[in-house]
Amino acid sequence: MSPSGPVPVVTFLSDYGPWDEFAGVCHAVILRRCPRARIVDLTHGVARGDVRAGALALCAAVPFAPAGVHLAVVDPGVGGSRRAVALRSGADGRHLVGPDNGLLMLAADELGGVLEAVEISHSVECLRPISATFHGRDIFAPVAAALADGATLARLGEPIDPETLERLELPRAHRHERVVTVHVLTIDAYGNVSFDATPEIVAAAGVELGAELIVQHAGGTAAATLGRTFGDVAPGELLLYGDARGTLALAINGGSAAHALGVSADDELVLSAR
Amino acid sequence: MSPSGPVPVVTFLSDYGPWDEFAGVCHAVILRRCPRARIVDLTHGVARGDVRAGALALCAAVPFAPAGVHLAVVDPGVGGSRRAVALRSGADGRHLVGPDNGLLMLAADELGGVLEAVEISHSVECLRPISATFHGRDIFAPVAAALADGATLARLGEPIDPETLERLELPRAHRHERVVTVHVLTIDAYGNVSFDATPEIVAAAGVELGAELIVQHAGGTAAATLGRTFGDVAPGELLLYGDARGTLALAINGGSAAHALGVSADDELVLSAR
Amino acid sequence: MSPSGPVPVVTFLSDYGPWDEFAGVCHAVILRRCPRARIVDLTHGVARGDVRAGALALCAAVPFAPAGVHLAVVDPGVGGSRRAVALRSGADGRHLVGPDNGLLMLAADELGGVLEAVEISHSVECLRPISATFHGRDIFAPVAAALADGATLARLGEPIDPETLERLELPRAHRHERVVTVHVLTIDAYGNVSFDATPEIVAAAGVELGAELIVQHAGGTAAATLGRTFGDVAPGELLLYGDARGTLALAINGGSAAHALGVSADDELVLSAR
Repeated sequence: MSPSGPVPVVTFLSDYGPWDEFAGVCHAVILRRCPRARIVDLTHGVARGDVRAGALALCAAVPFAPAGVHLAVVDPGVGGSRRAVALRSGADGRHLVGPDNGLLMLAADELGGVLEAVEISHSVECLRPISATFHGRDIFAPVAAALADGATLARLGEPIDPETLERLELPRAHRHERVVTVHVLTIDAYGNVSFDATPEIVAAAGVELGAELIVQHAGGTAAATLGRTFGDVAPGELLLYGDARGTLALAINGGSAAHALGVSADDELVLSAR
Repeated sequence: MSPSGPVPVVTFLSDYGPWDEFAGVCHAVILRRCPRARIVDLTHGVARGDVRAGALALCAAVPFAPAGVHLAVVDPGVGGSRRAVALRSGADGRHLVGPDNGLLMLAADELGGVLEAVEISHSVECLRPISATFHGRDIFAPVAAALADGATLARLGEPIDPETLERLELPRAHRHERVVTVHVLTIDAYGNVSFDATPEIVAAAGVELGAELIVQHAGGTAAATLGRTFGDVAPGELLLYGDARGTLALAINGGSAAHALGVSADDELVLSAR
Repeated sequence: MSPSGPVPVVTFLSDYGPWDEFAGVCHAVILRRCPRARIVDLTHGVARGDVRAGALALCAAVPFAPAGVHLAVVDPGVGGSRRAVALRSGADGRHLVGPDNGLLMLAADELGGVLEAVEISHSVECLRPISATFHGRDIFAPVAAALADGATLARLGEPIDPETLERLELPRAHRHERVVTVHVLTIDAYGNVSFDATPEIVAAAGVELGAELIVQHAGGTAAATLGRTFGDVAPGELLLYGDARGTLALAINGGSAAHALGVSADDELVLSAR
């Protein structure tokens, strides 16, 4: 990734949303520091401050991205005591940059773990004065751009022990014979609900493709069919399927499963084979 | 469009929205397959599953885009029996890639028709395993990237007869003397309502610029003025005009015509010259 | 910025929103005219027609952007009598392109003022026929692209006196001893409320970091704490702080200050030191 090498890629994910100039200003900052960088916006639509939703989206995206720098900012503790970090990860020398609040670690694990980590809150690359509320602009974007430009972690911050990096605690689905207990991890903009399990758990419960299950949720029960895609059930009906992330999920053909069932993140649901 | 030629352009339109990482992951996939590609997001804000709205937006955009690959994904039948296709179109060798549900065909016609078509559901370029619900990532983006990189249609899929490609059925405005019957094609985010006609139809009805018309809709009647731009009527008043796509449309200066009239797609309205 | 020079950068801000193809079509137009241009979307989420919010966002962003062309379109008077302009500004030869309604002038002042200005409504670069409602596509984007490609202002339009350019009238905060009267300039998507003052005004009122103030608004009074970042107050409590633009602002840790206080743009609030 030297100046004469291939075009360096910076992926960028945040909860800045489409309405304000925050993501755009970070683009500008990256481009000033590393004009050759190619920036790929993964999304800026993570729910405000929802570190787990950001971590899951980043983890789902990085395997499809070129080797490079993965910048991510979902940072409800900005300006507080949480650390700002840059990590090296994976066999192809990728970097992750963002707050040390668990946001980066699912993706880092997906890439093979953290090989090296530095604290960057006072990096030589920071824009000064460093604001208290926009570290995307003042710390994370300039450090990501420096990495894209070939800088080493050692030059960018103080070494820290990768074992001390914050990790999210995720719920854990479990199965007892033909009954599976799952928890809501995320809900996408279509209202599709993803769980803390893969489709294997319902296969292990003896449910075959096309079979019906009973879904118990706080508001009552509903019937769902195990299928592959939305059109496998009639419009308005519930589909249990493996989504594009490989995660067990619930959808309504042409509708919002989250709305229909009234579920939100962390809710527990019980799936029973008939 | 050989590797040594000019920068290949991929335009990209979808209903993935700004909230999830779906469009961003497709960017990543394109860039891995064709690092030189330049991606232009036309919009990812098409209403979910609204193939016609997507087709009209794509058709409005392609005449302004450089020659290249036009990737479009509004795909409520993903994973079902609909075909996935790549098309060659127009004198300058453009390609269109997306589901065979009518989404691409208005644009293809705008570009001069389809010269060659292939089915790409099992293309050598697909990411495998192919998911059942995210063909944007697994089929359409990699095929679009391969085309941007110079691949030929013949290498990317099985030839199909362009005559068999799905087409949308659009409503048809009609005029009887000074009375014009139109139907709502799309409503943009400002609440501007576009119809299945061009401004010529009201000119043929004898309405001149600045004249008033009566608009009959399901909820009642309203007065509108034929004008050129929003400021041609007072704030809050209805304007009938030719919009930037060249389509007959209804707007409210500083407001939402769709909201004020309570209209939605396919509604019939009757415009009567006074 | 000659064809053999560095990559020309075009920043782009508008109120076109993420739902329609308007911003994407402008990208396409720019790329056709100047294929080398690098486009940075600052935001397209400015509230529809809110020229002041657009002007403030642009002004906040340009100091972080590389020298280049700053294209901005928030244009409620499109097609009317307002002029379309391109300006040269600043020591590093930046250009600003957009409607002459005040949108560009805060940024121009931030860059050091306007050195040269031309009217571009009939520029040789315009796409013809020029629509009455989409000057972003037909006037502003092609002129911005021509500037990125090295064209001079003299070639692009008719010279006008910079003194005649429209300017926004902004409210003015004022202080009387320990009482500060401010007005709402903008509200971001998080509900953070920014005022027509910098934090210096409350310092001059004798308020120290960590001290409490009384905020009087139309709906009543509330207590706020002067701090640096959201975490300086308990969740749900009001924070008065200098935001990332350097502006005095009011936020709620984990909530929306605008919603809690029921304030909107131009509202007057009175801040009293205890």
